[in-house]
Amino acid sequence: MHQESLTEAAFDFSQYLERGRQLVEGQLAVYLSETAPKVLWESMRYSVLSGGKRLRAILCLSAAEAIAARENHSQKEVVEIVLPCCCAIEMVHAMSLIHDDLPAMDNDDYRRGKLTNHKVFGEAIALLAGDALLLYANQILLTKTPAQIDPAVTLSVASELCRACGPKGMVGGQVDDLAFTGRLEQVKIDLEAGENEVVELIHRGKTGELIRFSVWSGARLLGASADELAILSKYAESLGLAFQIADDLLDVTGDMKTLGKTPGKDLAANKVTWVTVYGEEGSRKRLRELEDAGLAYLDNSMFAGAPTNALKKLLQYAIYRSN
Amino acid sequence: MHQESLTEAAFDFSQYLERGRQLVEGQLAVYLSETAPKVLWESMRYSVLSGGKRLRAILCLSAAEAIAARENHSQKEVVEIVLPCCCAIEMVHAMSLIHDDLPAMDNDDYRRGKLTNHKVFGEAIALLAGDALLLYANQILLTKTPAQIDPAVTLSVASELCRACGPKGMVGGQVDDLAFTGRLEQVKIDLEAGENEVVELIHRGKTGELIRFSVWSGARLLGASADELAILSKYAESLGLAFQIADDLLDVTGDMKTLGKTPGKDLAANKVTWVTVYGEEGSRKRLRELEDAGLAYLDNSMFAGAPTNALKKLLQYAIYRSN
Repeated sequence: MHQESLTEAAFDFSQYLERGRQLVEGQLAVYLSETAPKVLWESMRYSVLSGGKRLRAILCLSAAEAIAARENHSQKEVVEIVLPCCCAIEMVHAMSLIHDDLPAMDNDDYRRGKLTNHKVFGEAIALLAGDALLLYANQILLTKTPAQIDPAVTLSVASELCRACGPKGMVGGQVDDLAFTGRLEQVKIDLEAGENEVVELIHRGKTGELIRFSVWSGARLLGASADELAILSKYAESLGLAFQIADDLLDVTGDMKTLGKTPGKDLAANKVTWVTVYGEEGSRKRLRELEDAGLAYLDNSMFAGAPTNALKKLLQYAIYRSN
Repeated sequence: MHQESLTEAAFDFSQYLERGRQLVEGQLAVYLSETAPKVLWESMRYSVLSGGKRLRAILCLSAAEAIAARENHSQKEVVEIVLPCCCAIEMVHAMSLIHDDLPAMDNDDYRRGKLTNHKVFGEAIALLAGDALLLYANQILLTKTPAQIDPAVTLSVASELCRACGPKGMVGGQVDDLAFTGRLEQVKIDLEAGENEVVELIHRGKTGELIRFSVWSGARLLGASADELAILSKYAESLGLAFQIADDLLDVTGDMKTLGKTPGKDLAANKVTWVTVYGEEGSRKRLRELEDAGLAYLDNSMFAGAPTNALKKLLQYAIYRSN
């Protein structure tokens, strides 16, 4: 029942995704068209412009559109307001993948079907390209968000990006992930004793925070109220957790060709994932719960009349995707 | 003549340095007092709170004081306004050292007389601690700069920090540094052919940009005019280049105990430094020129009556220090 609804779209969802992807990639190419030092920008472009779903950027855009309808903003205005933020999000995401793939971390050779950054440019350049992307993402957000946006709002969005990705957010989640790698048996024992927060803690930090920020920032830049931001954040938390559980499932069920990265690595590394802890069936069950919860947030009367179709489809896409 | 002037202080310079150091370290300890994930914050604290001259933070404070005198700000107000920025600068600086020391980069075992971060916490945590510090530094600057400062000013300071440290600044300089390591002979040949920009290019990026930002941001936060910012930036560029040349000299003349890091590494690695390219005498000559130029900027009539004593002493300290 859930999966079929993807084809019942009142609008053409795959066209919507494609339009968002093109908008974001076009602008990323512009921002990343610098030339000196040559090898650094090549390395940054290699990872940022290597495809990917652009799900986070599109979530930011869709959240903005949902809020903007009420304010009578044109489509063009909405894009102008949030596109720098969308690009910053994709740069930070690319940075996290570059550093994550390094030998000192997950030591991955392939990503999106291509050699990882350090395999092409060497470890030193990959490390510095990640650092550069983090700084450049913030710079773009701070300097390219249009002047019509109150500087206090831009400032709050930039500081929230840093918080969401920092030691209490994404980077903290990566540390938790590392800390529990190889301790799967212990986590299972703790789980039977009633301690079931570890897996959610890791997932929330590692992927959840940036996804939550993506939705939140789009709405915030378009002037969403505190209540709207709170509900949209709940929706985004459901989506973020679902996204990571789907990822964990794909590591078990996917193949190299579709995934573009090496499958089966989580199990081999004795990683704490939703699947290694709760099994495939438990993971699918949780996904259905998260889909229902996420959709219900968007059915809140607060959003009556708002175009939340795209956000609904994006939740289902995050769950039922094949890569 | 130059060196003696350090003792001719109209105010107690060593007490001034000590006060600045204590202010900055006290606040850094507060900002870094978080606990989860434990190992991440321990790793961040290990490098940020491991001593160091705090020269960059004190430059920010001193530039602020030079501008503030005219505006009748109290000492306490000035500190409140710039201290978050001072701490952000020190965090970004610490981050650059952590990543620079990694095996993929300079592969250093000691820094400030202590084991480097990855030697204590492992490469993965050192990498993530650097990323976390970069994000947390920006977050602190954006959220802790007092509300009395126009958000547009705070925003411009934060974006300039990202620019100064990013791919066209500090990180770009590290890439140039790597690119020319081992190519010392070629650089010397190019130099004889009239190509003398490489060494300055590397130095300007690697250390110059963050030092320039330190001075600029302190003045900007206190409302300096565009003309004042331009002259102070010139002073800071002289100081930044002098600081790195002094560093290159110390690599040749210093010892492990005083330096706290392994000396002689530049020559061994065939690195392009001021000393390996222009020799000791050429380096000392350039230092004297930079001292004169830097002091002359502060003698501009624009700063008549402004307390620029500390900035003058800081320039000489950067040149004549022993570690």
